Amino acid sequence: MTKIKAGIIGAAGYTGGELARLLLNHPNCELISIHSNSQKGKKIYETHPDLIGDSDLIFTDHVHTDLDVVFLALPHGEAKGFLERHQYPKETIIIDLSTDYRDESEDFVYGLPEINKSRIMTAKKIANPGCFATAIQLAVAPAVAHRLVAGDIHVTGITGSTGAGKQMNEFTHFTQRNQNISVYKLFNHQHLKEINATLVALDKDFKKEILFVPYRGNFSRGIWITAYFPYNRTLEDAYAMYREFYQEEAFTHVSDKEISLKQVVNTNKCIIHLQNLQGQLVVTAAIDNLVKGASGQAVHNLNLAMGFEETAGLHLKSIAF
Amino acid sequence: MTKIKAGIIGAAGYTGGELARLLLNHPNCELISIHSNSQKGKKIYETHPDLIGDSDLIFTDHVHTDLDVVFLALPHGEAKGFLERHQYPKETIIIDLSTDYRDESEDFVYGLPEINKSRIMTAKKIANPGCFATAIQLAVAPAVAHRLVAGDIHVTGITGSTGAGKQMNEFTHFTQRNQNISVYKLFNHQHLKEINATLVALDKDFKKEILFVPYRGNFSRGIWITAYFPYNRTLEDAYAMYREFYQEEAFTHVSDKEISLKQVVNTNKCIIHLQNLQGQLVVTAAIDNLVKGASGQAVHNLNLAMGFEETAGLHLKSIAF
Amino acid sequence: MTKIKAGIIGAAGYTGGELARLLLNHPNCELISIHSNSQKGKKIYETHPDLIGDSDLIFTDHVHTDLDVVFLALPHGEAKGFLERHQYPKETIIIDLSTDYRDESEDFVYGLPEINKSRIMTAKKIANPGCFATAIQLAVAPAVAHRLVAGDIHVTGITGSTGAGKQMNEFTHFTQRNQNISVYKLFNHQHLKEINATLVALDKDFKKEILFVPYRGNFSRGIWITAYFPYNRTLEDAYAMYREFYQEEAFTHVSDKEISLKQVVNTNKCIIHLQNLQGQLVVTAAIDNLVKGASGQAVHNLNLAMGFEETAGLHLKSIAF
Amino acid sequence: MTKIKAGIIGAAGYTGGELARLLLNHPNCELISIHSNSQKGKKIYETHPDLIGDSDLIFTDHVHTDLDVVFLALPHGEAKGFLERHQYPKETIIIDLSTDYRDESEDFVYGLPEINKSRIMTAKKIANPGCFATAIQLAVAPAVAHRLVAGDIHVTGITGSTGAGKQMNEFTHFTQRNQNISVYKLFNHQHLKEINATLVALDKDFKKEILFVPYRGNFSRGIWITAYFPYNRTLEDAYAMYREFYQEEAFTHVSDKEISLKQVVNTNKCIIHLQNLQGQLVVTAAIDNLVKGASGQAVHNLNLAMGFEETAGLHLKSIAF
Repeated sequence: MTKIKAGIIGAAGYTGGELARLLLNHPNCELISIHSNSQKGKKIYETHPDLIGDSDLIFTDHVHTDLDVVFLALPHGEAKGFLERHQYPKETIIIDLSTDYRDESEDFVYGLPEINKSRIMTAKKIANPGCFATAIQLAVAPAVAHRLVAGDIHVTGITGSTGAGKQMNEFTHFTQRNQNISVYKLFNHQHLKEINATLVALDKDFKKEILFVPYRGNFSRGIWITAYFPYNRTLEDAYAMYREFYQEEAFTHVSDKEISLKQVVNTNKCIIHLQNLQGQLVVTAAIDNLVKGASGQAVHNLNLAMGFEETAGLHLKSIAF
Repeated sequence: MTKIKAGIIGAAGYTGGELARLLLNHPNCELISIHSNSQKGKKIYETHPDLIGDSDLIFTDHVHTDLDVVFLALPHGEAKGFLERHQYPKETIIIDLSTDYRDESEDFVYGLPEINKSRIMTAKKIANPGCFATAIQLAVAPAVAHRLVAGDIHVTGITGSTGAGKQMNEFTHFTQRNQNISVYKLFNHQHLKEINATLVALDKDFKKEILFVPYRGNFSRGIWITAYFPYNRTLEDAYAMYREFYQEEAFTHVSDKEISLKQVVNTNKCIIHLQNLQGQLVVTAAIDNLVKGASGQAVHNLNLAMGFEETAGLHLKSIAF
Repeated sequence: MTKIKAGIIGAAGYTGGELARLLLNHPNCELISIHSNSQKGKKIYETHPDLIGDSDLIFTDHVHTDLDVVFLALPHGEAKGFLERHQYPKETIIIDLSTDYRDESEDFVYGLPEINKSRIMTAKKIANPGCFATAIQLAVAPAVAHRLVAGDIHVTGITGSTGAGKQMNEFTHFTQRNQNISVYKLFNHQHLKEINATLVALDKDFKKEILFVPYRGNFSRGIWITAYFPYNRTLEDAYAMYREFYQEEAFTHVSDKEISLKQVVNTNKCIIHLQNLQGQLVVTAAIDNLVKGASGQAVHNLNLAMGFEETAGLHLKSIAF
Repeated sequence: MTKIKAGIIGAAGYTGGELARLLLNHPNCELISIHSNSQKGKKIYETHPDLIGDSDLIFTDHVHTDLDVVFLALPHGEAKGFLERHQYPKETIIIDLSTDYRDESEDFVYGLPEINKSRIMTAKKIANPGCFATAIQLAVAPAVAHRLVAGDIHVTGITGSTGAGKQMNEFTHFTQRNQNISVYKLFNHQHLKEINATLVALDKDFKKEILFVPYRGNFSRGIWITAYFPYNRTLEDAYAMYREFYQEEAFTHVSDKEISLKQVVNTNKCIIHLQNLQGQLVVTAAIDNLVKGASGQAVHNLNLAMGFEETAGLHLKSIAF
């Protein structure tokens, strides 16, 4: 089987590194170009030292355009400028991991497979969702689609430190973050915009508030979501509804047991659990922010767009412990 | 100055150990009796090895009643039976750290100093509040007292592992808890009862729901609370109200800067921060669950009941980092 | 391609779970039997909840013997009794992860691929090495084989909590282990025996002491080794010797950059770095205790014994961060 | 009682902050000046937010010299220049926490109380020891003083992240350091110089090598030391020797039970445990790098130099859990 040719722009960062880890083991892809201005000339395992023995690729600042797929793993706000400066062939699939095209501008399709699968399968330009956005949308989408959200949605999310990227600041300093907890961007996280867009697409009359409290957790990987909203049916109905909504999905699973974050760390899974308490449907959900919340979902989108097996390259061993 | 004689029943557990750590350095107390059936005959530093060099006290299963103050640090449900079997002199101050008397039965006073200070000052029997209960009450009390809570209260709390005590189970196993997150007792935490009792005491018409999502955090000490509720005044009003409410308090501080959990770990402080967002007053608060949420508050209650300086024995160096 | 039939005895523990995670994704194997007395009747994902969506296998206490390979993941000391009670066909490959047969009794071959590859390729019974033993042997084997260890070997090792298995005790309690460090089995770790056997096999005159200080680390997965010994050649010679020794190895890599533990976590790699300081060759090495130090190495041994591609089922994405 | 006037130069860093935490609760001191160029004009609790409610001191870039004691908590190499530019009265006690005067140049006395107590008691200028140096010296001093170290000393040390200070780099980035282990400055740590000077002072013929492997640990506070060396007496002799050596010491305790790091975290203690194995005396020791290894020891030195009670201001509650 011939493999398609893949490249990563911004391959030195966290999501770029995760893309490389996934693509190096993808049965249908050959990673041929890793772009980084800052790491130019270095071998891939000098920057991502866990990749020693896996690849001798060298970072370049040359932009290869002769690719079947290019992943843009640039800082938010830089993808648009990059695509203005660099032209890819029409048939090249472009998957952008930043916020730049999540409004589906310029023919981009919002790449949340559980919601937009058929559109992704024919897309050439895919805007990969945000990590919190992925988890929150999957936690509430079935209920929104069935118009069973009977009031405002209250959400807490806790993210690992990798969500903040490689940058160094007070909140990524080990001494500060270790054994610590804090909140940020209260009710005002930038992902709320893309979440709302999806929910309105599922229910054009959706007008509920989403009150979202994001926490900085003292762990490296993973996102936990607890979402609840007034709900007037039984728990059995809720499970039936969620199971039906996700029954064809390869990575999103509904669990009738209580869940914990480490069930999903280092995998492309989203696991969801439901409870019905005091008139509220309480949904807990967990993903790995860098895999299902970023690079794994991007590979999933590639698989869909190319007609590969949906799980190709994504049979990932969880960290488990 | 003569020191009063203090004893601890259940001195082998986490809160019992913390009481010993505090009382050994208290200027007005002499810890003379540490009771434990399981550790009987051992030196205190065999069970609490950090106390090497500080004390040679020996655990006993004999119940000394010739004490000025006794702290009951027994498992929930065992204090009542203990006090039925053992009689203390009328003038002995009894401070119970369990849930058994938080309903103020049998002449116990609910020992939350910021709310009940004058009653504690004349009490002989004090029921020490729960850890989550302490933080949640302090986070919302001023607004409740001013009848400015204009809707239901949504609360998330994250607790360190010490909140679960010494018992070993899946959720206190290092391999399971490390780098992990999960929820428990959703909307149904046992502390809601004592919280409601206080809030009704502050506003007899208080009838709002408290929807409380408790998280298990992957750290040892500390409790973080985020509480929000509809609120119709300005943020300045809120700060003025909270500052006025706590202005005489030695341990509860209102911060106009964002806070983080480690500001309070290993201290008796509660630090509170306010934001006014989308019509909600959002209150974040942090305490150390074992100090302000248990043993430190118990010593504070002792200080009040004995007329000692309020901060005696509680000038604690925070862990800071 | 037909797949071979695999079973796991003791599939509920940590190494049993890791075997399941690996075998479920192995291209040449079908996991058909997971044995556990304690979990009998449960689905695999009730015990290993990260496997939801991956398999509906059910634990059984029936011992299937119609297997191409069986992995014994029993507590140390129980494999021997198990094999006395249960007879497998002669052609079934038996891979034991306990200490029971690491002395190569009863025709078992010591399954350290970097040293014993040709013997493993023709073996039917394989004794999988211990985790510390794996790392220490790989760290010193080239120098021992070349008789360049000119004095005693000083080793420190730090292990994650998973090394202690599922059992609950003081040292696996989160509150105790979190942010803590301690040593155990000083100079007396049970793996020293198998290490010595290998080193004597590499150099029949090897008589140096190995002084090994094992640490309990406050992390879940991974083993770090620092080993040093008097050495009279140049660093360049040392690198050449180690690189030559491991040049054919799929999983053991020599790095000329300083290493860190997380380079290998959740992979089957061993990464080794060398320094020559004050007349000592200082070797640092890292493995994942549950993968390269247990279940991954067991699968590697299976691959060798069956003639599969050496890396089959072992292209694992590292945790990286 | 009148209190002496204390100041801190470099009060914004980790050790400067710890000094402030200690001095604010010191019964004989009043902290009147906190110097920092970078934080000038800020309140102390804006930079050290755990100090909210404890002090309203304001950082200044003015150098007060009218002090009874000044602590220099500057980066290594900057104390010397500072003292050239700023003149303190002859009677002001100067305690420098940097490496600059640990060679006892310019009349400084090396401030390790367990070794140099009588000299410290009459000193005006005190060079506070390094953190690793403190722990290693206390671990081996009795045996060196008795000339019972019969061969080279092998040492591993593991330090918390606070040892690296506030600076941000790869090794203080949470995502990198969390759940990770690495070594640095192998056999070449800068503290070896001051350690050797002390050991030669204890035994002028001391010529053994100290082979020191320093580890970066994934925790915030604390230093663990394992040191061993050939030794020809019994374990009982060793315990007697260590106990006798430290019997007058307020903070250094010999434990006949195995120890763990958290016994000392947030205290000024050093706890030492001994084993006699394979002809080696194995010493494990633990300190808090910022307290006993820096600011607490500096306060201890102040107490000695001023004739205060040795433990004044240093009755610290350990973190315990």
